[in-house]
Amino acid sequence: MSKEQIYKLSELYDNTTDKNDILNIESKLKKLLKPYKEGSIGIAQINPIAGDIEYNAKKIVKYIVHSQNIGLDLVVFPELCLMGYPIEDTIDRHPIIVEENIKWLKQIAKITTNTTALVGFVEPRKYDKLTGKKYYNSVAVISEGKIQSVIRKSLLPTYSEFNDYRYIQPSPVVGAQSAETLGKFSAKKVQICPKTNIINGRKYGISICEDCWNNKEFFNDTTLYSLDPIEELAKEKPDVFINCSASPTRAKKEQLKHNMLSFISKKYTTPIVYVNQVGAIDNSSFDGSSRVFDKNGKLLARAKSFKEQFLIVNPDKNLGKIYPLTKGLEQSLTETKVYTLEYEPDLERTYKTIIQGIRDYFQKTGFVRAVLGLSGGLDSTVCAVLLADALGCKNVFGISMPSKITSQESKSDAQKLAENLEINFCEASIKEMFETTNNCLQKLFKSIEKKWDSRYEKSFTSDNIQARSRAMFLWGISNEFGKTLPIATSDKSELYMGYATINGDMSGGFAPIADVPKTKLFALARWINKNREIKNAIPQSIIDKKPGAELAIDPKTGKPLIAEDALMPYEFLDEIIWRIENKKEHYFDMLNSKFLYEKKHPISKEQKIEWLDKFYRRMASALYKWSILPPSVIVDSRSINKYDYKQPITSSGINYKGLSNEEIKSKILEIL
Amino acid sequence: MSKEQIYKLSELYDNTTDKNDILNIESKLKKLLKPYKEGSIGIAQINPIAGDIEYNAKKIVKYIVHSQNIGLDLVVFPELCLMGYPIEDTIDRHPIIVEENIKWLKQIAKITTNTTALVGFVEPRKYDKLTGKKYYNSVAVISEGKIQSVIRKSLLPTYSEFNDYRYIQPSPVVGAQSAETLGKFSAKKVQICPKTNIINGRKYGISICEDCWNNKEFFNDTTLYSLDPIEELAKEKPDVFINCSASPTRAKKEQLKHNMLSFISKKYTTPIVYVNQVGAIDNSSFDGSSRVFDKNGKLLARAKSFKEQFLIVNPDKNLGKIYPLTKGLEQSLTETKVYTLEYEPDLERTYKTIIQGIRDYFQKTGFVRAVLGLSGGLDSTVCAVLLADALGCKNVFGISMPSKITSQESKSDAQKLAENLEINFCEASIKEMFETTNNCLQKLFKSIEKKWDSRYEKSFTSDNIQARSRAMFLWGISNEFGKTLPIATSDKSELYMGYATINGDMSGGFAPIADVPKTKLFALARWINKNREIKNAIPQSIIDKKPGAELAIDPKTGKPLIAEDALMPYEFLDEIIWRIENKKEHYFDMLNSKFLYEKKHPISKEQKIEWLDKFYRRMASALYKWSILPPSVIVDSRSINKYDYKQPITSSGINYKGLSNEEIKSKILEIL
Repeated sequence: MSKEQIYKLSELYDNTTDKNDILNIESKLKKLLKPYKEGSIGIAQINPIAGDIEYNAKKIVKYIVHSQNIGLDLVVFPELCLMGYPIEDTIDRHPIIVEENIKWLKQIAKITTNTTALVGFVEPRKYDKLTGKKYYNSVAVISEGKIQSVIRKSLLPTYSEFNDYRYIQPSPVVGAQSAETLGKFSAKKVQICPKTNIINGRKYGISICEDCWNNKEFFNDTTLYSLDPIEELAKEKPDVFINCSASPTRAKKEQLKHNMLSFISKKYTTPIVYVNQVGAIDNSSFDGSSRVFDKNGKLLARAKSFKEQFLIVNPDKNLGKIYPLTKGLEQSLTETKVYTLEYEPDLERTYKTIIQGIRDYFQKTGFVRAVLGLSGGLDSTVCAVLLADALGCKNVFGISMPSKITSQESKSDAQKLAENLEINFCEASIKEMFETTNNCLQKLFKSIEKKWDSRYEKSFTSDNIQARSRAMFLWGISNEFGKTLPIATSDKSELYMGYATINGDMSGGFAPIADVPKTKLFALARWINKNREIKNAIPQSIIDKKPGAELAIDPKTGKPLIAEDALMPYEFLDEIIWRIENKKEHYFDMLNSKFLYEKKHPISKEQKIEWLDKFYRRMASALYKWSILPPSVIVDSRSINKYDYKQPITSSGINYKGLSNEEIKSKILEIL
Repeated sequence: MSKEQIYKLSELYDNTTDKNDILNIESKLKKLLKPYKEGSIGIAQINPIAGDIEYNAKKIVKYIVHSQNIGLDLVVFPELCLMGYPIEDTIDRHPIIVEENIKWLKQIAKITTNTTALVGFVEPRKYDKLTGKKYYNSVAVISEGKIQSVIRKSLLPTYSEFNDYRYIQPSPVVGAQSAETLGKFSAKKVQICPKTNIINGRKYGISICEDCWNNKEFFNDTTLYSLDPIEELAKEKPDVFINCSASPTRAKKEQLKHNMLSFISKKYTTPIVYVNQVGAIDNSSFDGSSRVFDKNGKLLARAKSFKEQFLIVNPDKNLGKIYPLTKGLEQSLTETKVYTLEYEPDLERTYKTIIQGIRDYFQKTGFVRAVLGLSGGLDSTVCAVLLADALGCKNVFGISMPSKITSQESKSDAQKLAENLEINFCEASIKEMFETTNNCLQKLFKSIEKKWDSRYEKSFTSDNIQARSRAMFLWGISNEFGKTLPIATSDKSELYMGYATINGDMSGGFAPIADVPKTKLFALARWINKNREIKNAIPQSIIDKKPGAELAIDPKTGKPLIAEDALMPYEFLDEIIWRIENKKEHYFDMLNSKFLYEKKHPISKEQKIEWLDKFYRRMASALYKWSILPPSVIVDSRSINKYDYKQPITSSGINYKGLSNEEIKSKILEIL
């Protein structure tokens, strides 16, 4: 009973800023917590701003004071919480922020009492003679007015969006070293001191993020590092493991994390407290969902997903509430073996990941309002919903920008959507702009073709003028109205195919759905209509119609060109993407196995070859577009986000089919 | 005498593709080389295409056959020559190219005779149970029809534009392991075999790029790694060191490299043969300049800079020509202590680095032609010269796109420049487009301001419409004419200040001068006029006039606004950039020391504060622009190229002034 009261009061605390309320809550909590005091831990799941030390430090101070006021033994913050993770080269080019984070850390330490705090920070390595990188990724153990000891990260993720080894030196030792080593730790002078920390009579084995991701048994002897910091810590038989993390959400990652943490606590019969960052920093969206497993590997507590929260737990005394995980976070990695169009299980996570990505990008860069073109098509429609939900409907302006090709239905769909969402809406025709631009350009082309004979018989120029005129409108609004960002509405399927216009629909200050393939976008639209507070905000006709850019007329039908005719069926396209990303398949792997699409619609081998070739050709020429895409939220297990996937643009000539040994032999013979 | 003939014949070989010529040259060379045969080495300084294995392999075959035909002991290729460096995530997402490079390697090995070849390749690590990354960065020693042994890179640069640790496992051992270890090398089964390779009775200590950059003595005990592979190799007392590299040019890097290689050969009384990649891959421009130092640390041979070349050397027999280094490659790192406007020493290198960057980006992506706006200003002018020299004047189209603000002088300057360069030229007014767009936008703004009250009293909307209209023309030409890329003309100073229009002048397929600050650009323009074959191609009036975007009228003067008035004097601005990049100074460092500009033009402290604040404010909001900048050549010692400098856009709120301990204390007190 008193446990429920603790959780309830803690939720009240999360939702108030009123000083009297807080004092009141704290005095009640303190009393209720008395029986749980020994071994009590506060999980401070915060949303930091990268590089804004003062902002982050103030949050830390707030939660330390709170923990003291309610008499907790320990309060734990996420990895690098003073800096925000990731901070990338900023710490190298702007060393002032490293100095600042040390200053704040030292001052914060001074206010600590007998509640211990674990605070992540960037530790500069200041020696006359330095071997290695200039910084450690560290956690300070602070209490009784000072820094007691320092833990340094050993395993440095340097893959996907992670770049730790770029600026961080891996710690050669695991666990705590004395405070005297701050800034001058040397592997040669490792202290003969316990790796674990004794706090109020309990022994804690503290590690940082990736340090707990290397259990050889769990990962079937296929791991990225040889050292296992948890195994090292376990040798000291700690009472509790603590892991300070900053781990972004990606598809299929969460069950793995859950299983792994459960495995570790069970294997070593030691509870583990895992504290994760929440909020988005540029392209990475962190889900929070901090949690505690008891010594039998059973989930004891879990914080909310995608929300800041202060959660009180005590692994020894069975204190800790399990908040529901956002649906979609629980899929396992092994489920990725077969392609499926059943996106439903991942849609709530997808929605929340993007909402958080948009909201934090705007808030952390100081933008408030978004403006986007509403074409009546699926991409801009889903973007509009996500923006309205992330920023508030009053802060979104949808502009219908019809050309002469735009159908009446598209216009009315756009307007209906705006009404349903209660976002701002107006119409602005691009006809005049198109005509003027096209006239000017046609004249200009006449001059150019006198000198260059490479004019295409059929070009996409007029399609692109339309897309660029619209972007011109949106950027104009951004220039004219304060704190307003235009939105790039390109989706993942079309970006893979380069089916997006430079300075047109792929231009904007943020690209919300750049990591959502088209078939999933349809599912998301249906999910939105079913699950959002206001149901069916998206007109059914938008979901029902075939996507098309409405930039050109199909000479065969006299109607606007359907995207699938220009590309290939989205179901087929999205399965290619899925196979490349998740199974690293290549051309012949795909040619020689059956696609889901083929099971429903038998196609000839020639057709399949045509689509596969088109895919590879178009993907190669899309590399440049990926490199200039605005920031976007990484959602999927793999993405084309430029901080997540790096391929030289000049490597576009890769022979995706490969050569046989015989072919290679004969090519060599030709030279000899 | 016969040495000179050897060098001359070798140059002839480099410049012919005629089979008879080649046979003739080879038979002569073979005779002449007889006295130098033992210990003779061919340096194959090639320009690979990233990921295009067939293209690279054919070059390798060609030079292996040539080396055999003229009877060399050894032929050496740059690091990862089969793949091209860097290849980044491509090898992970497209594993087929790794399979291909192994297939080619094995087939190439079959054609080898008693001439040994050192060929760089990506080695997949194929085990049931894998610890670490999936690949090694390796060199195969091939001769007598097979792979004899494999050398693996130990030190993995992961800073600036380098990203080796992202996908490569560092080798725990130095030197050669047997061919049987290919694909399955295990540190646990290190072979008791010489680390060095015996080739025709000589012992070679072979290493890969960064492996030779870690001499503790040379670097004053401040190094990135603890292992020194060269020291390990030296223990076996090799006759010659060989280093296979892919090392891009950056300002002030070359003298360091020279001194270091000289130091190593002298310290171990062992000659070193350093073979570098040439050519550009996306943003990195490799200078070649492969070289040999004799056992006394004296330069014995050096290949050309920025050119493919096959250079024959024999460190034992004093065979090896020293080709002149491109001026600018020889500056030392220590020269960066004081800011200077004396750019002259680095201009030839700057010019050639960019020329190669443009040429290779176009060739390797299949583009042929460039189109750019010619404003009569410095940025577009220098770009036009560089493009004409890189692509040929017939492949460049300069478009003068005047608005009503454009002066007659600007128009005639642009035309004169085009005539001098013999590039294509035409004029296309943006007046109509501006008016139409502006009218449409003004109407649209009226609708928007009914809902949003954040309309600026003074905006840059009309400035930006002009810049975007021009980009619309250029991209239209790119859509209409085959293999044509528009050029982004933004320079480094203005990019730092965000003084560039999104979808306007900063938009394009390539940004040639994005790493050249304005004051250096002036110097480059003067250098071009003096040193190019056709002198004074740039009208003096362009160099003389004050830069300005001609997008708006200064109400005070009634004339187009001068950029320096909107920003600050370029001399001052460029020194801020230089101090931040080269000395990691921050706000108060700069406020409290004298700028070169101040020595000439005394300014008040208030003025200085105003400029510094403006710089930091504008730099913070320019982060987004950096992230969507097209590929550009990295030229300077540090750059804002997104593959070289990574800072979260959401970290734009960094407090660049920092806080004192007292300020921090009082801020904490406020919370308590």
